[in-house]
Amino acid sequence: MNKDKNIKPVQGKLGVLLPGLGAVSTTFIAGVLAIRKGDAKPIGSLTQMGRIRLGKRTEGKNPLIKDFIDLPKLDDLVFGGWDIFEENCYEAAMKAGVLEKDLLNSVKDELEQIKPMKAVFSNDYIKLLNGPNVKTGENKWHLANQLREDIRNFKKENGCERLVMVWCGSTEVYIEKSDVHSTIEKFEEGLKNSDPNIAPSMMYAYAAICEGVPFANGAPNLSADIPALDDLAKKNVVPVAGKDYKTGQTLMKTILAPGFKARMLGLDGWFSTNILGNRDGEVLDDPASFKTKEVSKLSVLEQILQPDLYPDLYGKLYHKVRINYYPPRGDNKEGWDNIDISGWLGYPMQIKVDFLCRDSILAAPLVLDLVLFMDLASRAEMGGIQEWLSFYFKSPVCAPNLYPEHDIFIQLMKLKNTLRFLKDEDLITHLGLDYYYE
Amino acid sequence: MNKDKNIKPVQGKLGVLLPGLGAVSTTFIAGVLAIRKGDAKPIGSLTQMGRIRLGKRTEGKNPLIKDFIDLPKLDDLVFGGWDIFEENCYEAAMKAGVLEKDLLNSVKDELEQIKPMKAVFSNDYIKLLNGPNVKTGENKWHLANQLREDIRNFKKENGCERLVMVWCGSTEVYIEKSDVHSTIEKFEEGLKNSDPNIAPSMMYAYAAICEGVPFANGAPNLSADIPALDDLAKKNVVPVAGKDYKTGQTLMKTILAPGFKARMLGLDGWFSTNILGNRDGEVLDDPASFKTKEVSKLSVLEQILQPDLYPDLYGKLYHKVRINYYPPRGDNKEGWDNIDISGWLGYPMQIKVDFLCRDSILAAPLVLDLVLFMDLASRAEMGGIQEWLSFYFKSPVCAPNLYPEHDIFIQLMKLKNTLRFLKDEDLITHLGLDYYYE
Amino acid sequence: MNKDKNIKPVQGKLGVLLPGLGAVSTTFIAGVLAIRKGDAKPIGSLTQMGRIRLGKRTEGKNPLIKDFIDLPKLDDLVFGGWDIFEENCYEAAMKAGVLEKDLLNSVKDELEQIKPMKAVFSNDYIKLLNGPNVKTGENKWHLANQLREDIRNFKKENGCERLVMVWCGSTEVYIEKSDVHSTIEKFEEGLKNSDPNIAPSMMYAYAAICEGVPFANGAPNLSADIPALDDLAKKNVVPVAGKDYKTGQTLMKTILAPGFKARMLGLDGWFSTNILGNRDGEVLDDPASFKTKEVSKLSVLEQILQPDLYPDLYGKLYHKVRINYYPPRGDNKEGWDNIDISGWLGYPMQIKVDFLCRDSILAAPLVLDLVLFMDLASRAEMGGIQEWLSFYFKSPVCAPNLYPEHDIFIQLMKLKNTLRFLKDEDLITHLGLDYYYE
Amino acid sequence: MNKDKNIKPVQGKLGVLLPGLGAVSTTFIAGVLAIRKGDAKPIGSLTQMGRIRLGKRTEGKNPLIKDFIDLPKLDDLVFGGWDIFEENCYEAAMKAGVLEKDLLNSVKDELEQIKPMKAVFSNDYIKLLNGPNVKTGENKWHLANQLREDIRNFKKENGCERLVMVWCGSTEVYIEKSDVHSTIEKFEEGLKNSDPNIAPSMMYAYAAICEGVPFANGAPNLSADIPALDDLAKKNVVPVAGKDYKTGQTLMKTILAPGFKARMLGLDGWFSTNILGNRDGEVLDDPASFKTKEVSKLSVLEQILQPDLYPDLYGKLYHKVRINYYPPRGDNKEGWDNIDISGWLGYPMQIKVDFLCRDSILAAPLVLDLVLFMDLASRAEMGGIQEWLSFYFKSPVCAPNLYPEHDIFIQLMKLKNTLRFLKDEDLITHLGLDYYYE
Repeated sequence: MNKDKNIKPVQGKLGVLLPGLGAVSTTFIAGVLAIRKGDAKPIGSLTQMGRIRLGKRTEGKNPLIKDFIDLPKLDDLVFGGWDIFEENCYEAAMKAGVLEKDLLNSVKDELEQIKPMKAVFSNDYIKLLNGPNVKTGENKWHLANQLREDIRNFKKENGCERLVMVWCGSTEVYIEKSDVHSTIEKFEEGLKNSDPNIAPSMMYAYAAICEGVPFANGAPNLSADIPALDDLAKKNVVPVAGKDYKTGQTLMKTILAPGFKARMLGLDGWFSTNILGNRDGEVLDDPASFKTKEVSKLSVLEQILQPDLYPDLYGKLYHKVRINYYPPRGDNKEGWDNIDISGWLGYPMQIKVDFLCRDSILAAPLVLDLVLFMDLASRAEMGGIQEWLSFYFKSPVCAPNLYPEHDIFIQLMKLKNTLRFLKDEDLITHLGLDYYYE
Repeated sequence: MNKDKNIKPVQGKLGVLLPGLGAVSTTFIAGVLAIRKGDAKPIGSLTQMGRIRLGKRTEGKNPLIKDFIDLPKLDDLVFGGWDIFEENCYEAAMKAGVLEKDLLNSVKDELEQIKPMKAVFSNDYIKLLNGPNVKTGENKWHLANQLREDIRNFKKENGCERLVMVWCGSTEVYIEKSDVHSTIEKFEEGLKNSDPNIAPSMMYAYAAICEGVPFANGAPNLSADIPALDDLAKKNVVPVAGKDYKTGQTLMKTILAPGFKARMLGLDGWFSTNILGNRDGEVLDDPASFKTKEVSKLSVLEQILQPDLYPDLYGKLYHKVRINYYPPRGDNKEGWDNIDISGWLGYPMQIKVDFLCRDSILAAPLVLDLVLFMDLASRAEMGGIQEWLSFYFKSPVCAPNLYPEHDIFIQLMKLKNTLRFLKDEDLITHLGLDYYYE
Repeated sequence: MNKDKNIKPVQGKLGVLLPGLGAVSTTFIAGVLAIRKGDAKPIGSLTQMGRIRLGKRTEGKNPLIKDFIDLPKLDDLVFGGWDIFEENCYEAAMKAGVLEKDLLNSVKDELEQIKPMKAVFSNDYIKLLNGPNVKTGENKWHLANQLREDIRNFKKENGCERLVMVWCGSTEVYIEKSDVHSTIEKFEEGLKNSDPNIAPSMMYAYAAICEGVPFANGAPNLSADIPALDDLAKKNVVPVAGKDYKTGQTLMKTILAPGFKARMLGLDGWFSTNILGNRDGEVLDDPASFKTKEVSKLSVLEQILQPDLYPDLYGKLYHKVRINYYPPRGDNKEGWDNIDISGWLGYPMQIKVDFLCRDSILAAPLVLDLVLFMDLASRAEMGGIQEWLSFYFKSPVCAPNLYPEHDIFIQLMKLKNTLRFLKDEDLITHLGLDYYYE
Repeated sequence: MNKDKNIKPVQGKLGVLLPGLGAVSTTFIAGVLAIRKGDAKPIGSLTQMGRIRLGKRTEGKNPLIKDFIDLPKLDDLVFGGWDIFEENCYEAAMKAGVLEKDLLNSVKDELEQIKPMKAVFSNDYIKLLNGPNVKTGENKWHLANQLREDIRNFKKENGCERLVMVWCGSTEVYIEKSDVHSTIEKFEEGLKNSDPNIAPSMMYAYAAICEGVPFANGAPNLSADIPALDDLAKKNVVPVAGKDYKTGQTLMKTILAPGFKARMLGLDGWFSTNILGNRDGEVLDDPASFKTKEVSKLSVLEQILQPDLYPDLYGKLYHKVRINYYPPRGDNKEGWDNIDISGWLGYPMQIKVDFLCRDSILAAPLVLDLVLFMDLASRAEMGGIQEWLSFYFKSPVCAPNLYPEHDIFIQLMKLKNTLRFLKDEDLITHLGLDYYYE
């Protein structure tokens, strides 16, 4: 960030590049097109619907965020992406079955023109999918360079001023950070050797950062969350953010757990099960992909509850997460939670939460917000990890010496105070004693 | 509050006076006694279990609240109260059936010594109860003065340094503020005339404030929430707080609603039903008492959601609350909520929350916290409305020119920043950009 | 019934007359039209989808019911009815919002031709509705005769061989049987005097029975369930059946309660709440109409559980039913039940059932079955109460000296054995026809 | 069965031998002891609480089953069993934590006297348990003979007239019937060779049948359900019954599924998940044991729904069952089901069932009924498979040429008609004894 917090003004077109043109991406794109035409509202999007309180409660100043800070207009977005299937976005959206036919038909022409570029893909990382629209190359370095070329071509062909990349692809198998991820030199060497520890999603992140394109990661894959790419992002002053959209059950968890903790209610057990029937569910039927997702889903409670500080309350929490592929539901995911809490003197109580949600409907507005906020960060010259966007992620990435914040209310305050800070407004503390005592 | 925020140090005994010695009061008292003996933990109590973060995340400073700020010890509390039934606290606790017999027997001697003083009571205000242990007097002024005398006697007989009164009685019938409530002169005149608009709970509040005893109100009754008593409290530098303990379903509502709003998810409908079988349920079977409770329960969503600012999201919310007397459950209340939310492009989703809670187990630690924090406020010379204790109430009272805060996370931040402020610590904003950019 | 169980063969058209052309009726009619065209399946209809086991398990003889016994074909049905609104069936179905537009448009022409005849209606019996399409007459006798004329005209104009009437109108206010209902003479006298105890639905039933048209009652209204009309039905050899379609929550109750009883599990409490947003919900917001529905809904457990025979298990059951008008859901009703059961040594357990149902989708196939079975009963010369159709009703009508059967599994056995009996097949018992025909 | 259905009269003591003295067994035994003393009721037991209707509805004849047919009195029962742990029944019951301490202490003396005999046990069949109280022997033949000796000694030492054995042990790993199970000769040869396909539970069943002791199987293990033991049971005129107590979720399934089918409602998906924290849950964390249980739990829907006869309704049902070890709950199991049903024209609806049950509380009365009914069968000389007791089992065993009946209402009718048949009362059918006795 530059000292005087100068933010470059918005101008020209913003290209949105999406690895993975499946249910989430097409719901996002079709939705933006429908909203542009005035046929629907961007519900769930903080950048479009949200307001920010300025000053004191009694002043009544609550502008829309998009009026408060300079963000690209929806009309200025241009869409592109990669996928292992050849269907255009209209076909892919019809197959996904998330949005109603009437709505999709109203934006059919625009959707049909968005055709997936060939994807970098490997069954080593996603076992249960296969598709024909895949790049070939002699090694991973070669593949990564093809992606860089795609990015440059897209920008040129579409006359874009700036670009943003948001990962909307599948969950890869679980891997941990290793030596090849430690420095950019080793990483680039690894690309040339086709090191097996370099996942396809890392190549997308690498290509984006090399090209100066902000990269946000909607899956729990490591992707840009390795020292090599973090360093490169800081050096190139490119914003990176992740990981894993916080949508259904985990969203609820980061709402509820801060509530129980606020009240100092104990937690003995939290059992979460999911049933879902979309491509996501299919991929997660592979235990190796499920592991990646499970680690992401399990992490949230530990940080919020701080069992080391509150051993009497949270020291013995038994936390279990299950995901079940259940085709009758398609994209209409359902999460059921049983929560065993304890109160005064340790007396037990129970809470059950049944969430009949829609995966892509919850994720799409997050994609939009990330596109616009990542572009803002880029224009404000905020390179590297964007912790202030933790609000959007199940596994928020943060600086190595910090712990991630999972409490959604702290995340929101962090986000809004960052906006206030960027615009030199007073930060909010909710003290308010001045109303009572002069 | 005095300028230099001097807080009188804790010393001597603190008398706790409870109008209503039923399920909540006896669960609170028996629990404190058991905790003193080391037989149980004060789970649910922020003053006993809670910590407060000081400084930056990386400093790791999180003292217990009770170590951070000077609060009375549990050993220094002395208990007393009023009730329309003659049972001592052991008998009343056995009848309430909340705590296990083993636990109650372990503190039987102490409980048996707590015998209810005769109550000020009227069937005009609570229709479905009747009991023999009731004061008589020629008018309400006379009755109020008997209460003042009770307070002075209790203080003297128990050698208390200070007192706190917390209303734990039933919900009275619905009334609105009227002329007799507008000034202390009219109010005292009304007492002498036995004005029908002066409820028994107001006489308790009046007696407490006259005697310099902080008054907190755990029911939705108006009680101290009238200009006459507010003015008197400010004049006498006596803290007052209320109304209506935020326990089961409403607690959940003020956790969930801020979560939906954080994410800009729309709300089309919220249906809440309760089944409960204790004395509370019995009283609320009277429509006039239910009205008082309903108004309190309905108010929370309106303020949190701000439908005037977010008409597309919350302008058409249909909010309904039902309470059903259902004897098979006793004190083990159950709340079931159906929440109709909408996401991206207006697509509908549903959430069901089933809360198998225990009314008194959730309320008891709130009584403890209010006792200790109200005493703190008194020692800090903070007279009048204690908005910083909104955290504990369904209908938090605030200054006339303000709106009440219902979002439990803002309430908690307000509470903790008030403690930080009283101790001259930095307020927390969760900005944290300094970790990333020097 | 005639001795040799001769059933007149099916031939010609069967006219279906429906008082009330709202959500249920239009869902039924549009559905039959779509099924005729092969666009959908008559799921939920026993006459269309059901099979009947004949002989021993090892014989494997399970013909479809419609192949086993002579029933009208769907192609032979002709539809008509009365309503207080003037919309034709296409318009009414669109307004009801139960079926998808695509489906309704595929049968639009036929639906549009079905226009409601003017209804007999009174705000004394349904308080919260009002519509313009209403008959006038100097007294109730005159109004009833207009209905008889409507019936005759419909039959002639549509070339029907036979007719059936099925009440699909609203729930009237609660009344009990009184003197004017005791004999046909007093009833006809009452019509002439416009006796206030004669409800509109009774006039429809009277008109049908006079015209030899079987009458089935889908609402909890008394209608034909009075001695005057029962006697007339027997005399005219006209089948009558009722009352109140067994659809969502009560359907579940008559499935679950026999299960608990089979296992001799105790029941301490059963709390049922409903949220619904259709016209039905609107009408039931009137306490007088709700009373009628409540009596119907409460009755089922008492009979199934036989607390007099099982006082230790069911003697203290607390049963409560609530219905809440909740517009966000429209016709998509939701029923939530909490059931407190007890097992070995009296230990308590709980069951919660959340039923996200669709009112009209559950009711429509019942209308179809009743049309076809009532016509069968008529051709078999079975006059008066049709207890064997108890399967379809919340409040099954039976002979005065009997108790109604609510257990859905006994009801089904009774129905199927009746069919077997009519075709001289070996029985599986629970027949009970001998109570009606010597 | 003998021709004239002579049932030997009850006299003397009946010894109850239970392999496995864990939660179910001790809950059963302690319960019977408490009931004998008049301290509790045998809720859930058909033999103790149930009535049987005789004759017509109007006759009002509904005697208690235990008054209708000659069954042993609870006072005549004597208890014994085997376990791999050495605790006596009082200690085991305290550890199981199912019943309240007060109740257990009231029958402590009697419970303490019941000490487990050394068990036949193998980690090949139950992987996750280990205990010290285990028999040794040179081969399985030798072990089986030790069991026979135990049986004879128990009978003599306790002065029993007759014995019954009911398996209350754990679920063994999944195996299928193989050659060694085909004839008694091969089986006995296998015992001598310690054939790995002979499970411990089979040795118990073999020992019982050899000693003329009826054997009922409360787990899904094959045990007596192999041709070798079936033939031996018929030859020795010893009743055998099984398998797997029908308690929580599966009990609900066999109540609900017949209900949906009665109404011809379609089923698209049925997802069942369980959380439980007792020893049962621990054992089922082993995939091989879970497989045995899963097969048992999955089988019920297929038979009830007959997808071959109803392909439009049940041809595409997706049925999934999950069991999760979740320690916070102990014996208080919870089952959550999501059921996707379809109605008229295929419109989807959903039902959720949350069952907060108690495993051993549901199973204990089944043990009691099986003890008494198996003894009845023995006195009535009914050898081999007791299909009329299907009511009690998840996987009812039946003759090879038949399909098992899972519909709990048909099962109950079958049971009651068997009793009527034995007492020469008029039947309500579903008898089916002719499949077994010409």
